[in-house]
Amino acid sequence: MNRQAVSNYKQGLLETAHTLRHKIRVGEFTGSTSGFAPGLIQGNVVILPSDWAQDFLYFCQLNPVSCPLIAVSRPGEPLLPELGNDIDIRCDVPEYNVFVDGELTHTAIDIADLWNEQMVTFILGCSFSFEEALQRAGLSVRNIDLGRNVSMYETSLPTSPSTRFHGNTVVTMRPFSPADAIRAIQVTTRLPKAHGAPIHIGRPDLIGIDDLTSPHFGDSVPVGEDEIPVFWACGVTPQVAIRNARPPLCITHVPGKMLVTDRLNDELAVL
Amino acid sequence: MNRQAVSNYKQGLLETAHTLRHKIRVGEFTGSTSGFAPGLIQGNVVILPSDWAQDFLYFCQLNPVSCPLIAVSRPGEPLLPELGNDIDIRCDVPEYNVFVDGELTHTAIDIADLWNEQMVTFILGCSFSFEEALQRAGLSVRNIDLGRNVSMYETSLPTSPSTRFHGNTVVTMRPFSPADAIRAIQVTTRLPKAHGAPIHIGRPDLIGIDDLTSPHFGDSVPVGEDEIPVFWACGVTPQVAIRNARPPLCITHVPGKMLVTDRLNDELAVL
Repeated sequence: MNRQAVSNYKQGLLETAHTLRHKIRVGEFTGSTSGFAPGLIQGNVVILPSDWAQDFLYFCQLNPVSCPLIAVSRPGEPLLPELGNDIDIRCDVPEYNVFVDGELTHTAIDIADLWNEQMVTFILGCSFSFEEALQRAGLSVRNIDLGRNVSMYETSLPTSPSTRFHGNTVVTMRPFSPADAIRAIQVTTRLPKAHGAPIHIGRPDLIGIDDLTSPHFGDSVPVGEDEIPVFWACGVTPQVAIRNARPPLCITHVPGKMLVTDRLNDELAVL
Repeated sequence: MNRQAVSNYKQGLLETAHTLRHKIRVGEFTGSTSGFAPGLIQGNVVILPSDWAQDFLYFCQLNPVSCPLIAVSRPGEPLLPELGNDIDIRCDVPEYNVFVDGELTHTAIDIADLWNEQMVTFILGCSFSFEEALQRAGLSVRNIDLGRNVSMYETSLPTSPSTRFHGNTVVTMRPFSPADAIRAIQVTTRLPKAHGAPIHIGRPDLIGIDDLTSPHFGDSVPVGEDEIPVFWACGVTPQVAIRNARPPLCITHVPGKMLVTDRLNDELAVL
Protein backbone atom coordinates (compact mmCIF):
# COMPACT_ATOMS: atom_id res chain seq x y z
CA MET A 1 0.00 0.00 0.00
CA ASN A 2 1.24 3.48 -0.76
CA ARG A 3 0.85 6.26 1.77
CA GLN A 4 -2.49 7.48 0.40
CA ALA A 5 -3.89 3.92 0.38
CA VAL A 6 -2.87 3.40 4.02
CA SER A 7 -4.57 6.65 4.90
CA ASN A 8 -7.78 5.64 3.09
CA TYR A 9 -7.64 2.24 4.81
CA LYS A 10 -7.47 3.80 8.25
CA GLN A 11 -10.04 6.46 7.34
CA GLY A 12 -12.58 3.73 6.54
CA LEU A 13 -11.98 2.10 9.93
CA LEU A 14 -12.32 5.41 11.76
CA GLU A 15 -15.65 6.17 10.10
CA THR A 16 -16.94 2.78 11.27
CA ALA A 17 -15.73 3.52 14.81
CA HIS A 18 -17.25 7.02 14.86
CA THR A 19 -20.60 5.71 13.62
CA LEU A 20 -20.60 2.95 16.25
CA ARG A 21 -19.58 5.29 19.08
CA HIS A 22 -22.32 7.74 18.05
CA LYS A 23 -24.93 4.97 18.29
CA ILE A 24 -23.49 4.01 21.68
CA ARG A 25 -23.50 7.62 22.87
CA VAL A 26 -27.18 8.14 22.04
CA GLY A 27 -28.15 4.76 23.52
CA GLU A 28 -29.00 3.05 20.24
CA PHE A 29 -26.27 0.39 20.65
CA THR A 30 -26.01 -1.27 24.07
CA GLY A 31 -24.73 -4.75 23.10
CA SER A 32 -21.43 -6.63 22.97
CA THR A 33 -18.86 -4.99 20.74
CA SER A 34 -17.26 -8.35 19.82
CA GLY A 35 -16.73 -8.40 16.06
CA PHE A 36 -17.63 -4.71 15.65
CA ALA A 37 -15.16 -2.12 14.30
CA PRO A 38 -12.65 -4.78 13.23
CA GLY A 39 -9.08 -3.52 13.02
CA LEU A 40 -9.45 -1.06 15.90
CA ILE A 41 -8.41 -1.46 19.52
CA GLN A 42 -11.20 -2.05 22.02
CA GLY A 43 -10.58 -1.46 25.69
CA ASN A 44 -11.65 -2.65 29.12
CA VAL A 45 -12.69 0.24 31.36
CA VAL A 46 -12.05 0.88 35.07
CA ILE A 47 -12.93 4.26 36.62
CA LEU A 48 -11.90 4.94 40.23
CA PRO A 49 -11.59 7.90 42.62
CA SER A 50 -8.09 9.36 42.55
CA ASP A 51 -7.26 8.16 46.09
CA TRP A 52 -7.73 4.58 44.85
CA ALA A 53 -6.07 5.12 41.48
CA GLN A 54 -2.43 4.74 42.53
CA ASP A 55 -3.03 1.36 44.14
CA PHE A 56 -4.95 0.18 41.07
CA LEU A 57 -2.11 1.37 38.86
CA TYR A 58 0.19 -0.78 41.01
CA PHE A 59 -2.20 -3.74 40.60
CA CYS A 60 -2.01 -3.37 36.80
CA GLN A 61 1.77 -3.19 36.93
CA LEU A 62 1.82 -6.42 38.96
CA ASN A 63 -0.58 -8.20 36.59
CA PRO A 64 0.34 -6.99 33.10
CA VAL A 65 -1.11 -10.03 31.29
CA SER A 66 -4.64 -9.64 32.64
CA CYS A 67 -4.36 -5.84 33.00
CA PRO A 68 -2.35 -4.44 30.04
CA LEU A 69 -2.66 -0.67 30.44
CA ILE A 70 -3.11 1.30 27.24
CA ALA A 71 -4.31 4.61 28.72
CA VAL A 72 -4.77 6.40 32.06
CA SER A 73 -6.54 9.77 32.34
CA ARG A 74 -5.76 12.69 34.60
CA PRO A 75 -8.24 13.05 37.53
CA GLY A 76 -11.53 14.53 36.39
CA GLU A 77 -10.64 14.36 32.69
CA PRO A 78 -13.39 12.48 30.79
CA LEU A 79 -11.69 12.72 27.39
CA LEU A 80 -9.06 10.24 26.16
CA PRO A 81 -7.41 12.05 23.22
CA GLU A 82 -4.63 9.44 22.94
CA LEU A 83 -7.27 6.83 22.01
CA GLY A 84 -9.54 8.98 19.82
CA ASN A 85 -10.21 12.66 19.38
CA ASP A 86 -13.92 12.55 20.30
CA ILE A 87 -14.00 9.91 23.05
CA ASP A 88 -15.93 10.87 26.19
CA ILE A 89 -15.67 8.04 28.71
CA ARG A 90 -18.90 9.18 30.41
CA CYS A 91 -21.11 8.07 27.50
CA ASP A 92 -19.08 6.13 24.91
CA VAL A 93 -19.29 2.64 26.47
CA PRO A 94 -22.39 0.59 25.54
CA GLU A 95 -23.17 -0.29 29.15
CA TYR A 96 -21.46 0.34 32.50
CA ASN A 97 -21.29 -1.65 35.73
CA VAL A 98 -21.49 0.55 38.84
CA PHE A 99 -19.90 -0.85 42.01
CA VAL A 100 -20.57 0.80 45.39
CA ASP A 101 -18.39 -0.47 48.24
CA GLY A 102 -17.41 -3.38 45.99
CA GLU A 103 -20.98 -4.46 45.29
CA LEU A 104 -22.38 -4.33 41.76
CA THR A 105 -25.42 -2.16 42.44
CA HIS A 106 -26.66 -1.40 38.94
CA THR A 107 -25.80 -0.91 35.30
CA ALA A 108 -26.08 2.29 33.29
CA ILE A 109 -25.73 3.43 29.68
CA ASP A 110 -24.38 6.85 30.72
CA ILE A 111 -22.43 7.83 33.84
CA ALA A 112 -22.44 11.64 33.54
CA ASP A 113 -24.41 11.88 36.80
CA LEU A 114 -21.72 9.88 38.63
CA TRP A 115 -18.74 11.79 37.23
CA ASN A 116 -16.72 14.16 39.40
CA GLU A 117 -13.34 15.88 39.46
CA GLN A 118 -11.69 12.95 41.25
CA MET A 119 -12.46 10.25 38.71
CA VAL A 120 -9.49 8.56 36.99
CA THR A 121 -10.06 6.34 33.94
CA PHE A 122 -7.97 3.25 33.17
CA ILE A 123 -8.23 1.60 29.75
CA LEU A 124 -6.84 -1.95 29.45
CA GLY A 125 -6.22 -3.88 26.23
CA CYS A 126 -8.84 -6.45 25.26
CA SER A 127 -8.87 -9.85 23.60
CA PHE A 128 -11.20 -8.52 20.91
CA SER A 129 -8.07 -6.97 19.38
CA PHE A 130 -6.48 -10.35 18.88
CA GLU A 131 -9.71 -11.90 17.59
CA GLU A 132 -9.25 -9.82 14.47
CA ALA A 133 -5.65 -11.04 14.20
CA LEU A 134 -6.88 -14.64 14.55
CA GLN A 135 -9.41 -14.14 11.78
CA ARG A 136 -6.80 -12.56 9.52
CA ALA A 137 -4.70 -15.71 10.12
CA GLY A 138 -7.57 -17.77 8.72
CA LEU A 139 -8.84 -19.07 12.06
CA SER A 140 -12.51 -19.20 13.01
CA VAL A 141 -13.46 -17.42 16.24
CA ARG A 142 -16.51 -19.31 17.45
CA ASN A 143 -18.10 -16.53 19.53
CA ILE A 144 -17.93 -14.13 16.58
CA ASP A 145 -19.22 -16.76 14.16
CA LEU A 146 -22.17 -17.40 16.49
CA GLY A 147 -22.79 -13.68 17.14
CA ARG A 148 -22.33 -14.22 20.88
CA ASN A 149 -20.29 -12.60 23.62
CA VAL A 150 -17.15 -14.58 24.51
CA SER A 151 -17.30 -17.01 27.49
CA MET A 152 -15.52 -15.70 30.59
CA TYR A 153 -14.67 -17.60 33.78
CA GLU A 154 -13.28 -16.69 37.19
CA THR A 155 -10.42 -19.17 37.67
CA SER A 156 -8.50 -20.45 40.68
CA LEU A 157 -5.36 -18.65 39.44
CA PRO A 158 -4.57 -15.83 41.90
CA THR A 159 -3.44 -12.41 40.73
CA SER A 160 -0.50 -10.66 42.41
CA PRO A 161 -2.15 -8.45 45.02
CA SER A 162 -1.53 -4.73 45.45
CA THR A 163 -2.27 -3.12 48.82
CA ARG A 164 -6.04 -3.30 48.38
CA PHE A 165 -6.74 -5.08 45.07
CA HIS A 166 -6.61 -8.86 44.98
CA GLY A 167 -8.51 -11.84 43.64
CA ASN A 168 -8.44 -14.56 41.02
CA THR A 169 -7.76 -14.15 37.33
CA VAL A 170 -10.69 -14.06 34.90
CA VAL A 171 -10.12 -15.74 31.52
CA THR A 172 -11.84 -15.83 28.15
CA MET A 173 -12.20 -19.17 26.37
CA ARG A 174 -12.15 -19.93 22.67
CA PRO A 175 -12.33 -23.47 21.25
CA PHE A 176 -9.99 -24.57 18.47
CA SER A 177 -8.75 -27.73 16.81
CA PRO A 178 -5.31 -28.61 18.25
CA ALA A 179 -3.49 -27.35 15.14
CA ASP A 180 -5.44 -24.08 15.15
CA ALA A 181 -4.81 -23.72 18.90
CA ILE A 182 -1.07 -23.83 18.21
CA ARG A 183 -1.47 -21.20 15.48
CA ALA A 184 -3.60 -19.07 17.83
CA ILE A 185 -0.81 -19.13 20.41
CA GLN A 186 1.65 -17.90 17.78
CA VAL A 187 -0.65 -15.15 16.52
CA THR A 188 -1.60 -13.78 19.94
CA THR A 189 1.99 -13.87 21.21
CA ARG A 190 2.51 -10.84 18.96
CA LEU A 191 -0.09 -8.82 20.91
CA PRO A 192 1.08 -8.49 24.53
CA LYS A 193 -1.06 -5.36 25.06
CA ALA A 194 -4.15 -7.40 24.13
CA HIS A 195 -3.36 -10.08 26.77
CA GLY A 196 -0.82 -11.79 24.50
CA ALA A 197 -0.51 -15.57 24.45
CA PRO A 198 -2.98 -17.82 26.26
CA ILE A 199 -2.27 -18.59 29.91
CA HIS A 200 -3.86 -22.06 29.79
CA ILE A 201 -4.89 -24.70 27.26
CA GLY A 202 -7.06 -27.80 27.61
CA ARG A 203 -8.02 -29.20 31.03
CA PRO A 204 -10.34 -26.51 32.47
CA ASP A 205 -10.37 -28.48 35.76
CA LEU A 206 -6.74 -27.50 36.39
CA ILE A 207 -7.68 -23.82 36.70
CA GLY A 208 -10.84 -24.27 38.74
CA ILE A 209 -13.41 -24.32 35.94
CA ASP A 210 -15.88 -27.12 36.65
CA ASP A 211 -18.34 -26.55 33.82
CA LEU A 212 -17.32 -24.90 30.54
CA THR A 213 -20.98 -24.58 29.52
CA SER A 214 -21.71 -22.20 32.43
CA PRO A 215 -19.43 -19.16 32.04
CA HIS A 216 -19.40 -16.62 34.87
CA PHE A 217 -19.61 -13.73 32.40
CA GLY A 218 -20.65 -13.51 28.75
CA ASP A 219 -22.35 -16.26 26.76
CA SER A 220 -21.90 -20.01 26.51
CA VAL A 221 -19.88 -21.04 23.45
CA PRO A 222 -19.82 -24.73 22.48
CA VAL A 223 -16.56 -26.71 22.32
CA GLY A 224 -16.59 -29.33 19.54
CA GLU A 225 -15.72 -32.99 20.09
CA ASP A 226 -12.40 -32.59 18.24
CA GLU A 227 -11.51 -29.25 19.83
CA ILE A 228 -9.69 -28.09 22.93
CA PRO A 229 -10.48 -24.96 24.96
CA VAL A 230 -7.85 -22.21 24.93
CA PHE A 231 -7.83 -19.65 27.75
CA TRP A 232 -6.56 -16.07 27.69
CA ALA A 233 -6.28 -13.65 30.64
CA CYS A 234 -9.18 -11.20 30.56
CA GLY A 235 -9.64 -7.52 31.36
CA VAL A 236 -12.62 -8.44 33.55
CA THR A 237 -10.06 -9.57 36.14
CA PRO A 238 -10.13 -6.10 37.79
CA GLN A 239 -13.87 -6.43 38.40
CA VAL A 240 -13.16 -9.37 40.72
CA ALA A 241 -10.41 -7.37 42.44
CA ILE A 242 -12.81 -4.43 42.84
CA ARG A 243 -15.37 -6.66 44.57
CA ASN A 244 -12.62 -7.61 47.01
CA ALA A 245 -11.10 -4.13 47.48
CA ARG A 246 -14.48 -2.42 48.04
CA PRO A 247 -13.73 1.12 46.86
CA PRO A 248 -16.63 3.49 47.68
CA LEU A 249 -17.35 3.94 43.96
CA CYS A 250 -16.03 2.21 40.87
CA ILE A 251 -17.40 2.17 37.35
CA THR A 252 -16.43 -0.40 34.72
CA HIS A 253 -17.76 -1.57 31.36
CA VAL A 254 -20.18 -4.50 31.33
CA PRO A 255 -18.10 -7.54 30.25
CA GLY A 256 -18.03 -7.74 26.43
CA LYS A 257 -19.29 -4.18 25.97
CA MET A 258 -16.02 -2.34 25.41
CA LEU A 259 -14.75 1.12 24.60
CA VAL A 260 -14.08 1.25 20.83
CA THR A 261 -11.05 3.43 20.05
CA ASP A 262 -9.53 5.04 16.95
CA ARG A 263 -6.22 3.20 17.36
CA LEU A 264 -5.24 0.29 15.13
CA ASN A 265 -4.92 -3.20 16.65
CA ASP A 266 -1.62 -3.50 14.81
CA GLU A 267 -0.27 -0.65 16.94
CA LEU A 268 -0.33 -3.13 19.84
CA ALA A 269 1.78 -5.70 17.98
CA VAL A 270 5.39 -6.61 18.59
CA LEU A 271 7.35 -8.06 15.66
CA MET B 1 30.13 -11.47 25.47
CA ASN B 2 33.08 -10.04 23.64
CA ARG B 3 34.49 -11.71 20.53
CA GLN B 4 37.05 -13.76 22.42
CA ALA B 5 34.42 -14.99 24.89
CA VAL B 6 32.09 -16.07 22.09
CA SER B 7 34.96 -17.89 20.48
CA ASN B 8 35.84 -19.66 23.74
CA TYR B 9 32.15 -20.52 24.23
CA LYS B 10 31.91 -22.18 20.83
CA GLN B 11 35.32 -23.80 21.22
CA GLY B 12 34.13 -25.57 24.37
CA LEU B 13 31.08 -26.91 22.55
CA LEU B 14 33.17 -28.12 19.61
CA GLU B 15 35.54 -30.01 21.88
CA THR B 16 32.55 -31.79 23.43
CA ALA B 17 31.25 -32.66 19.97
CA HIS B 18 34.64 -33.91 18.74
CA THR B 19 35.08 -36.06 21.83
CA LEU B 20 31.59 -37.53 21.43
CA ARG B 21 32.02 -38.16 17.68
CA HIS B 22 35.35 -39.88 18.35
CA LYS B 23 33.69 -42.25 20.83
CA ILE B 24 30.95 -42.88 18.27
CA ARG B 25 33.48 -43.47 15.48
CA VAL B 26 35.37 -46.10 17.46
CA GLY B 27 32.15 -47.76 18.63
CA GLU B 28 32.39 -46.73 22.27
CA PHE B 29 29.18 -44.71 22.19
CA THR B 30 26.17 -46.37 20.52
CA GLY B 31 23.27 -44.84 22.48
CA SER B 32 20.74 -42.03 22.11
CA THR B 33 22.34 -38.62 21.68
CA SER B 34 19.43 -36.84 23.42
CA GLY B 35 20.92 -34.37 25.90
CA PHE B 36 24.48 -34.84 24.62
CA ALA B 37 26.53 -32.01 23.08
CA PRO B 38 23.98 -29.37 24.15
CA GLY B 39 24.10 -26.22 22.03
CA LEU B 40 25.00 -28.03 18.82
CA ILE B 41 22.74 -29.11 15.97
CA GLN B 42 21.98 -32.82 15.76
CA GLY B 43 20.66 -34.28 12.52
CA ASN B 44 18.45 -37.04 11.19
CA VAL B 45 20.21 -39.07 8.50
CA VAL B 46 18.92 -40.50 5.22
CA ILE B 47 21.36 -42.03 2.70
CA LEU B 48 20.02 -43.10 -0.71
CA PRO B 49 21.38 -44.09 -4.13
CA SER B 50 21.59 -41.07 -6.45
CA ASP B 51 18.76 -42.32 -8.72
CA TRP B 52 16.43 -42.09 -5.70
CA ALA B 53 17.87 -38.86 -4.35
CA GLN B 54 15.98 -36.39 -6.51
CA ASP B 55 12.58 -37.80 -5.57
CA PHE B 56 13.54 -37.78 -1.90
CA LEU B 57 14.64 -34.16 -2.21
CA TYR B 58 11.18 -33.43 -3.64
CA PHE B 59 9.60 -35.28 -0.68
CA CYS B 60 11.54 -33.07 1.75
CA GLN B 61 10.49 -29.95 -0.13
CA LEU B 62 6.84 -31.04 0.13
CA ASN B 63 7.12 -31.83 3.85
CA PRO B 64 9.40 -29.18 5.31
CA VAL B 65 8.07 -29.45 8.88
CA SER B 66 8.88 -33.14 9.27
CA CYS B 67 11.85 -33.05 6.84
CA PRO B 68 13.73 -29.74 7.32
CA LEU B 69 16.84 -30.13 5.14
CA ILE B 70 20.05 -28.75 6.58
CA ALA B 71 22.57 -30.49 4.29
CA VAL B 72 22.74 -32.65 1.15
CA SER B 73 25.99 -34.24 -0.05
CA ARG B 74 27.24 -34.77 -3.59
CA PRO B 75 26.97 -38.43 -4.77
CA GLY B 76 29.72 -40.58 -3.25
CA GLU B 77 30.95 -37.83 -0.92
CA PRO B 78 31.05 -39.17 2.68
CA LEU B 79 32.23 -35.87 4.22
CA LEU B 80 29.90 -33.06 5.26
CA PRO B 81 32.21 -30.06 5.66
CA GLU B 82 29.32 -27.59 6.01
CA LEU B 83 28.31 -29.36 9.24
CA GLY B 84 31.76 -30.05 10.71
CA ASN B 85 35.28 -30.33 9.33
CA ASP B 86 35.90 -33.94 10.40
CA ILE B 87 32.47 -35.52 9.87
CA ASP B 88 32.47 -38.83 7.98
CA ILE B 89 28.89 -40.02 7.57
CA ARG B 90 30.08 -43.64 7.18
CA CYS B 91 31.08 -43.96 10.85
CA ASP B 92 29.97 -40.87 12.83
CA VAL B 93 26.41 -41.95 13.68
CA PRO B 94 26.00 -44.10 16.84
CA GLU B 95 23.89 -46.70 15.08
CA TYR B 96 22.44 -47.07 11.56
CA ASN B 97 19.26 -48.68 10.25
CA VAL B 98 19.80 -50.51 6.95
CA PHE B 99 16.75 -50.89 4.71
CA VAL B 100 16.86 -53.26 1.71
CA ASP B 101 13.87 -52.99 -0.64
CA GLY B 102 12.11 -50.99 2.08
CA GLU B 103 12.57 -53.62 4.78
CA LEU B 104 14.66 -52.89 7.87
CA THR B 105 17.10 -55.79 7.58
CA HIS B 106 19.68 -54.94 10.23
CA THR B 107 21.44 -52.25 12.20
CA ALA B 108 25.13 -51.34 12.04
CA ILE B 109 27.57 -49.08 13.84
CA ASP B 110 29.60 -48.45 10.68
CA ILE B 111 28.47 -48.48 7.04
CA ALA B 112 31.81 -48.26 5.21
CA ASP B 113 31.16 -51.66 3.63
CA LEU B 114 27.84 -50.43 2.19
CA TRP B 115 29.19 -47.13 0.85
CA ASN B 116 29.62 -46.56 -2.89
CA GLU B 117 30.06 -43.72 -5.37
CA GLN B 118 26.29 -43.36 -5.83
CA MET B 119 25.35 -42.66 -2.22
CA VAL B 120 23.78 -39.27 -1.40
CA THR B 121 23.44 -38.14 2.22
CA PHE B 122 20.55 -36.01 3.48
CA ILE B 123 20.73 -34.42 6.93
CA LEU B 124 17.46 -33.16 8.41
CA GLY B 125 17.07 -30.94 11.48
CA CYS B 126 16.12 -32.66 14.72
CA SER B 127 13.98 -31.85 17.74
CA PHE B 128 17.00 -32.33 20.00
CA SER B 129 18.04 -28.85 18.86
CA PHE B 130 14.93 -27.30 20.33
CA GLU B 131 15.18 -29.36 23.52
CA GLU B 132 18.17 -27.24 24.44
CA ALA B 133 16.16 -24.09 23.67
CA LEU B 134 13.34 -25.39 25.89
CA GLN B 135 15.77 -26.01 28.74
CA ARG B 136 17.31 -22.57 28.35
CA ALA B 137 13.76 -21.19 28.66
CA GLY B 138 13.52 -22.89 32.05
CA LEU B 139 11.31 -25.79 30.93
CA SER B 140 11.89 -29.41 31.95
CA VAL B 141 12.25 -31.90 29.11
CA ARG B 142 11.05 -35.17 30.61
CA ASN B 143 12.96 -37.57 28.34
CA ILE B 144 16.24 -35.79 29.10
CA ASP B 145 15.47 -35.63 32.83
CA LEU B 146 14.80 -39.39 32.81
CA GLY B 147 17.83 -40.18 30.63
CA ARG B 148 15.58 -41.81 28.03
CA ASN B 149 15.10 -41.54 24.30
CA VAL B 150 12.08 -39.40 23.32
CA SER B 151 8.77 -41.17 22.57
CA MET B 152 7.95 -41.34 18.84
CA TYR B 153 4.68 -42.37 17.19
CA GLU B 154 3.52 -42.99 13.65
CA THR B 155 0.34 -40.89 13.36
CA SER B 156 -2.65 -40.93 11.02
CA LEU B 157 -1.53 -37.57 9.55
CA PRO B 158 -0.48 -38.17 5.92
CA THR B 159 2.58 -36.53 4.42
CA SER B 160 2.43 -34.92 0.98
CA PRO B 161 3.63 -37.70 -1.37
CA SER B 162 6.41 -37.33 -3.93
CA THR B 163 6.51 -39.76 -6.85
CA ARG B 164 7.70 -42.69 -4.76
CA PHE B 165 7.85 -41.53 -1.14
CA HIS B 166 4.65 -41.42 0.90
CA GLY B 167 3.31 -42.36 4.31
CA ASN B 168 2.14 -40.94 7.60
CA THR B 169 3.92 -38.38 9.73
CA VAL B 170 5.97 -39.53 12.72
CA VAL B 171 5.87 -37.28 15.78
CA THR B 172 7.83 -36.91 19.01
CA MET B 173 5.89 -36.33 22.23
CA ARG B 174 6.89 -34.31 25.27
CA PRO B 175 4.60 -33.76 28.27
CA PHE B 176 4.19 -30.30 29.80
CA SER B 177 1.87 -28.44 32.13
CA PRO B 178 -0.54 -26.35 30.03
CA ALA B 179 1.33 -23.10 30.78
CA ASP B 180 4.68 -24.69 29.88
CA ALA B 181 3.14 -26.17 26.73
CA ILE B 182 2.21 -22.65 25.61
CA ARG B 183 5.76 -21.46 26.33
CA ALA B 184 7.17 -24.48 24.46
CA ILE B 185 5.12 -23.51 21.39
CA GLN B 186 6.57 -20.00 21.53
CA VAL B 187 10.15 -21.20 21.97
CA THR B 188 10.09 -23.82 19.22
CA THR B 189 8.36 -21.49 16.75
CA ARG B 190 11.76 -19.78 16.51
CA LEU B 191 13.39 -22.97 15.19
CA PRO B 192 11.71 -23.95 11.90
CA LYS B 193 14.77 -25.96 10.80
CA ALA B 194 14.39 -28.10 13.94
CA HIS B 195 10.72 -28.93 13.12
CA GLY B 196 9.52 -25.58 14.54
CA ALA B 197 6.24 -25.35 16.45
CA PRO B 198 4.29 -28.46 17.47
CA ILE B 199 1.80 -29.85 14.94
CA HIS B 200 -0.58 -31.18 17.60
CA ILE B 201 -1.38 -30.73 21.28
CA GLY B 202 -3.50 -32.81 23.66
CA ARG B 203 -5.89 -35.50 22.43
CA PRO B 204 -3.57 -38.18 20.96
CA ASP B 205 -6.68 -40.01 19.68
CA LEU B 206 -7.25 -37.28 17.09
CA ILE B 207 -3.98 -38.15 15.32
CA GLY B 208 -4.32 -41.92 15.51
CA ILE B 209 -2.33 -42.58 18.68
CA ASP B 210 -4.27 -45.09 20.79
CA ASP B 211 -1.77 -45.63 23.61
CA LEU B 212 0.76 -43.00 24.63
CA THR B 213 2.59 -45.52 26.81
CA SER B 214 3.53 -47.65 23.76
CA PRO B 215 5.58 -45.48 21.41
CA HIS B 216 6.45 -46.92 18.00
CA PHE B 217 10.06 -45.71 18.32
CA GLY B 218 12.15 -44.60 21.29
CA ASP B 219 11.25 -45.03 24.93
CA SER B 220 8.06 -44.60 26.92
CA VAL B 221 7.95 -41.26 28.76
CA PRO B 222 5.24 -40.75 31.40
CA VAL B 223 2.67 -37.95 31.14
CA GLY B 224 1.69 -36.51 34.53
CA GLU B 225 -1.89 -36.16 35.72
CA ASP B 226 -1.74 -32.37 35.35
CA GLU B 227 0.11 -32.41 32.02
CA ILE B 228 -0.85 -32.53 28.36
CA PRO B 229 1.11 -34.23 25.58
CA VAL B 230 2.65 -31.94 22.95
CA PHE B 231 3.55 -33.39 19.54
CA TRP B 232 6.22 -32.22 17.11
CA ALA B 233 6.86 -33.52 13.59
CA CYS B 234 9.84 -35.87 13.62
CA GLY B 235 12.72 -36.64 11.28
CA VAL B 236 11.89 -40.34 11.54
CA THR B 237 9.01 -39.59 9.15
CA PRO B 238 11.24 -40.48 6.14
CA GLN B 239 11.83 -43.96 7.56
CA VAL B 240 8.10 -44.68 7.15
CA ALA B 241 8.20 -43.24 3.61
CA ILE B 242 11.23 -45.43 2.84
CA ARG B 243 9.34 -48.55 3.93
CA ASN B 244 6.64 -47.57 1.46
CA ALA B 245 8.91 -46.49 -1.42
CA ARG B 246 11.12 -49.61 -1.21
CA PRO B 247 14.41 -48.30 -2.59
CA PRO B 248 16.91 -51.14 -3.14
CA LEU B 249 19.16 -49.74 -0.39
CA CYS B 250 18.67 -46.99 2.15
CA ILE B 251 20.62 -46.23 5.31
CA THR B 252 19.31 -44.04 8.12
CA HIS B 253 20.21 -43.36 11.74
CA VAL B 254 18.47 -45.41 14.43
CA PRO B 255 15.77 -43.14 15.88
CA GLY B 256 17.25 -41.04 18.70
CA LYS B 257 20.86 -41.80 17.68
CA MET B 258 21.68 -38.72 15.65
CA LEU B 259 24.57 -37.15 13.81
CA VAL B 260 26.15 -34.55 16.14
CA THR B 261 27.43 -31.54 14.16
CA ASP B 262 29.70 -28.57 14.85
CA ARG B 263 26.97 -26.03 14.05
CA LEU B 264 25.21 -24.05 16.77
CA ASN B 265 21.50 -24.66 17.41
CA ASP B 266 21.07 -20.90 17.41
CA GLU B 267 22.12 -20.84 13.76
CA LEU B 268 18.76 -22.51 13.04
CA ALA B 269 16.77 -19.79 14.80
CA VAL B 270 14.67 -17.08 13.22
CA LEU B 271 14.18 -13.85 15.19
